[in-house]
Amino acid sequence: MRILGIDPGLRTTGFGLIEKTGHHLRYVASGTIQTKEDSLPERLKTILHGVGEVIRTYQPDCAAIEKVFVNVNPQSTLLLGQARGAAICALVSADLSVAEYTALQVKQGVVGKGRADKTQVQDMVQRLLSLSGKPGSDAADALGVAICHAHSGDTLATLSQIAPELARKGLRVKGGRLIG
Amino acid sequence: MRILGIDPGLRTTGFGLIEKTGHHLRYVASGTIQTKEDSLPERLKTILHGVGEVIRTYQPDCAAIEKVFVNVNPQSTLLLGQARGAAICALVSADLSVAEYTALQVKQGVVGKGRADKTQVQDMVQRLLSLSGKPGSDAADALGVAICHAHSGDTLATLSQIAPELARKGLRVKGGRLIG
Repeated sequence: MRILGIDPGLRTTGFGLIEKTGHHLRYVASGTIQTKEDSLPERLKTILHGVGEVIRTYQPDCAAIEKVFVNVNPQSTLLLGQARGAAICALVSADLSVAEYTALQVKQGVVGKGRADKTQVQDMVQRLLSLSGKPGSDAADALGVAICHAHSGDTLATLSQIAPELARKGLRVKGGRLIG
Repeated sequence: MRILGIDPGLRTTGFGLIEKTGHHLRYVASGTIQTKEDSLPERLKTILHGVGEVIRTYQPDCAAIEKVFVNVNPQSTLLLGQARGAAICALVSADLSVAEYTALQVKQGVVGKGRADKTQVQDMVQRLLSLSGKPGSDAADALGVAICHAHSGDTLATLSQIAPELARKGLRVKGGRLIG
């Protein structure tokens, strides 16, 4: 299963793709989409098209995006919200399911503690994905969201994928057991 | 020239279309896009697809959207920002130019005073577009944004449209006069 992680921002949107096979995670790609336009609609267009291009290139199966902070400056919160809205639009346009994680959840999932700083996230992302170099901060956050989603239950194969005949009989899996 | 006005919101996005011929404005259509989904990405998808459907149906030449208020509740500001981002994404996806007006500008443009209330906007929109009934509040706001844009200089035909040979010579129009 290929997971696309997004760290949204109006100026810089980070993206990171990982491949999950069983419990093994493999790095696929990461980078940033930069907007330099003057007008807000043009910036949102760049984010929409940029994330769309990443999806077309790397064909992820699902997506996860960081829940953004409410900024002390309400105007910044509004701008960030619009940027995040544009990134989510690119994901849902490609019919990807979109999971959402707070920065706290990402840090806990990647570093093991919610109060980790940027560098610790970068270090742990590098180690978990066996990268030769340290990823940039925005790309590391995006890869972190993807890792966080890979560790969540939502990316486990469903019963209908593993044993469709059992799923058709109305059985489902709960806590690793088949239940009727 | 056909103008699409948008009044963005997470639950209700108003839209209104008017046709401008010279100084005359004609009502084309208006309505709302309602989102009832549980998840934010699904709601944004409904807004994106809904506005996209309006564009495909009514083929506007340009668009105008209301600048939203910063809410007292930062979380609401963030949600509204994302909804507005989704609406703008639908507009730029269709390659429409997007003008932005504050609620104050819309009220001044439609009612003539910035402190007008919702009912006054509805009344004036009804009168300006010769509607038989009073439009709903969200649709009236969207039509108001479109009217505001129709009255702005941006919707005047450009010299390159009226007299391309003069435009090619480097002439342009300022304050209704040809300047070199």
